[in-house]
Order: sequence, then C-alpha cells, then structure tokens
Amino acid sequence: MDTTQRPIAHFVNGSWAEKSDSLVTESPLEVRIEGTPIAVIMRTPGHDEDLVRGFAITEAIVAGPHEIAAVEPAPQDPEDNRWELTPTVPVDPEQFARNFYATSSCGVCGKASIDAIRVSGATPPRGPEMAAELILSLPDAMRQAQTTFDTTGGLHAAALFERTGDLIAIREDIGRHNAVDKVIGAVSQQRWPLGELLLMVSGRVSFEIVQKAAVAGIPLVAAVSAASSLAVELAEEMGMTVIGFLRADSFNVYTGQQRVAR
Amino acid sequence: MDTTQRPIAHFVNGSWAEKSDSLVTESPLEVRIEGTPIAVIMRTPGHDEDLVRGFAITEAIVAGPHEIAAVEPAPQDPEDNRWELTPTVPVDPEQFARNFYATSSCGVCGKASIDAIRVSGATPPRGPEMAAELILSLPDAMRQAQTTFDTTGGLHAAALFERTGDLIAIREDIGRHNAVDKVIGAVSQQRWPLGELLLMVSGRVSFEIVQKAAVAGIPLVAAVSAASSLAVELAEEMGMTVIGFLRADSFNVYTGQQRVAR
Repeated sequence: MDTTQRPIAHFVNGSWAEKSDSLVTESPLEVRIEGTPIAVIMRTPGHDEDLVRGFAITEAIVAGPHEIAAVEPAPQDPEDNRWELTPTVPVDPEQFARNFYATSSCGVCGKASIDAIRVSGATPPRGPEMAAELILSLPDAMRQAQTTFDTTGGLHAAALFERTGDLIAIREDIGRHNAVDKVIGAVSQQRWPLGELLLMVSGRVSFEIVQKAAVAGIPLVAAVSAASSLAVELAEEMGMTVIGFLRADSFNVYTGQQRVAR
Repeated sequence: MDTTQRPIAHFVNGSWAEKSDSLVTESPLEVRIEGTPIAVIMRTPGHDEDLVRGFAITEAIVAGPHEIAAVEPAPQDPEDNRWELTPTVPVDPEQFARNFYATSSCGVCGKASIDAIRVSGATPPRGPEMAAELILSLPDAMRQAQTTFDTTGGLHAAALFERTGDLIAIREDIGRHNAVDKVIGAVSQQRWPLGELLLMVSGRVSFEIVQKAAVAGIPLVAAVSAASSLAVELAEEMGMTVIGFLRADSFNVYTGQQRVAR
C-alpha cells in the first residue's frame, strides 16, 4: 500500500529505457467526528489508525489518548480512507472544521491571526538526559529501521527513542508531520505521557514539528537536517531541547543543552 | 532577513565547541483581504509580495494576476508581517477564511471532504517541449542560482525556466509550497499565462505542487527528488508532464513524455 508501481521512461547517459518504478503512495484520508468531516490529510496509506490518533493528540482535538474512545474506519468505505474519531468528551465537530488548523500542516497554518499562532498550556517535563555518544547512534538506528525510504526516496521518517537509545517505534509518510503524528499515535496506545522520550525526524525541524512535540509533552527533538529559527525560539520558550544536523560523528544543540550529558 | 544567527553547542568527534550558526528564518505572514485575515503562512521573510501574489493565484483566490489590484504591507505593521491583498473583483474574505484551504498546505489540505479535493477548470496548454540534454542542465543552473541553501541547509528552492533552458526566476523558502508560490508570484508580474514554462523544485513533487502548477497553467514540472503517486495521477489527468530524480546525467519521466524531445 505504501508504494505504487508505474511504468516510466528513464533517461541516462544519453539514452532512454522504459522501466517500472516504485512511487511512494499519496492518498487523502478524511477524519470525521460523528460523521462530520473535520480534516483531509494527504498521507501515505498504512498505520492510518496511528495517524488519526496522533493527529487528534498533537492538534489538541483531544487532551491525550485517554480522551479517545475509538478510532475506526467509517462504515461503508471499502477503501478505508474515511476514519471516524470518537472522543470520550463532547466535541463540536463544526468547531474543529473551522479552527483546528491552529497548529496543523506545513506552510499555511490557518490561524485567523498571527497573534494566536502559538499553542499554550503544554509544559514539557525535565527529562530525558541523554549521553552525547548515544545521540550519535540514533541516525543509524533510525535508518536501519526504515523500510520504504531506500526503494522510493520519497518518505519522511519519525521515530521515538528511550533515553537509553532504544528505538520504541518508527513510522514513515510522504508528509513530515504525518510521520510525527503516526509515531506519536502508535506509542500513545501503550504509554502516556511521553515526557521521557526523544523524537527524531529524518528531515528538518520547523516550528510545527516542535509545536506537535510540545503538545505531546516530548521535551527532546532531534533532526538529521536543519532547524528553523522559529522552531528553536519556540523550543527555548517551552524549555525543550532541539538537536540538528545529527550525523554519525557530530550534531548541533540549538537550545536546551542541559538534556545532553557532557 | 532569511537567516538568523544563534549561538549553538557543536559536538564533533567526542568534543564540544561553542559556535555561532546560521538558521533559516521562519516567521508567520498574515494575508488579509479588506482587513480580514484569511490565512497565516509560515514562511522565510523576503519576497513577501511575490509570496502573497503567488498564493492568491495558486490557491485560486483570484483567477490570475489581472485580478490583483494591489498587494501591500498592512498599515501599522512595522515588521511587514501582515499583507493586504486587494482583488479587482469582489471577494468575500469570510468565504476564504473558511474555504481556501481547498488546495493549500502540505499534509492537511482542509477540504471538507475527499470528494472535493481536486481543482477543476485548469487546462494546461501543449508546450513546452524540451530537449532531454537541456533538461539535464537544469539542476546545476538552479543550484548555482540558489543563494541561501549552502549556508543553512534548510531552504527549498523553486525555479521557472524557459524551454531554452534559461532560468527566469528562482525563489527560496523554508516551505516547499511557499517557494513555488514566490516564484510564480514573481514571474506573474511580468508575464501571463505561464504555459510555456517549466517549474523545477529542489525537493520532491507531491499532489499539491502539481495542483499549484496546474492552477497556474504550467504544464511541465521537474524535481530533484521523487514524485508521489497522486502527483503523477493528477498530472496524467491534467495532461501535464512530471520529471523526477533529475540529476546531471539522468532523470525519470513519469507522465507526459511528449514534452521531452527524443
């Protein structure tokens, strides 16, 4: 389901070849509450329940996994592209249909005004503290656990690690934010809160990745690539830690250095 | 404005160094119509007018540059983070505040339902046809024109090329879609329609990149990285061409091969 085969024309060193190529699958998933659509997410099919759970948590539709009664494919949708989210608390779907964009997506965030852009209320706990040498081992651990990336080159990955460096879960998706939502949604079914974990992403760290981690209570965010200015500012404000350009022999700590043991 | 200096802790080969690092700047821009905020875009400051123009066009808020009377910083905003879009035609800002997510953003697209996800009405023209050898030269031309990428590693680029391989304009942004909107907004002020041009992006091609190109009437989209399944399906449906994994010696044509001269 996460790759689609297509015939392509390949041009290399001056000559053409017809061949078949694996494309990463992208397809819309509709989230509903009481039958009312509240969002459409362009995602890579697979781990859809994790995605809906994580999205509900990191977009603050619910306050945590304990407020999710059920996440199920909507009836009469043979393709499982429509999912019904049932909170344990009363939720007005109309409200989210208009307002949940608060913290979602990349690029356009949908807030009515700039002043309202930041989440509030989230207070990450103090831990974990991790040894620098252990942090260096994370990219390799993540890469080894990735399943689809090498065949299509089109997927982002997000992983949650213990402070011991053990990988708990990893998820992949064509959308950076979806990968984060999927891995948070997956782990939230076994444990909560997530304040002792590290979130690692295969790409860069933008404001909204830090915001999702903050809402989920994850204090430590690491990325293979760069961090944005606003991501670091938000993390600093929230007392979180951001690590960027994490490679096998080096990394940068942008803020929250107290969580990296020297 | 497009980079922010920050002190960081750099860990390399077992030892720490304090140094200063360039982070790509990320900051919210608010788009208003008649004073009513209709969207907040997380963008890299710079070429903001291009961004607002391109966003208005590719999100179908207006039918083309001729329907944009003015794009100006809102009064009383010393930081120029609030921009006023003045269409030449009557537009109900409330409608867009709720509905323009139709084709926007990445991941969450905001459509009320899956059935409504596709744009309609756009019909890309037949051209351009480009020689394969010329297409191979585009990544290098784009890379040479990029200004910020090498210092921060955090920016996406989008460029518009003539069928002769000449670069017309390039824009960079932390958001993939913003880079596309900026370059389309920039060029739309000198020429329209854009049916003879090729759009090249530094990353991958997702559904929404193809959708933006389709709405802007650009028939040829090329990317350094992978294409998604839905991007290729939409392009096929629209009669467009998608090229992926475009490197110095090779590329893939996913659909619309008639535009690549053999």
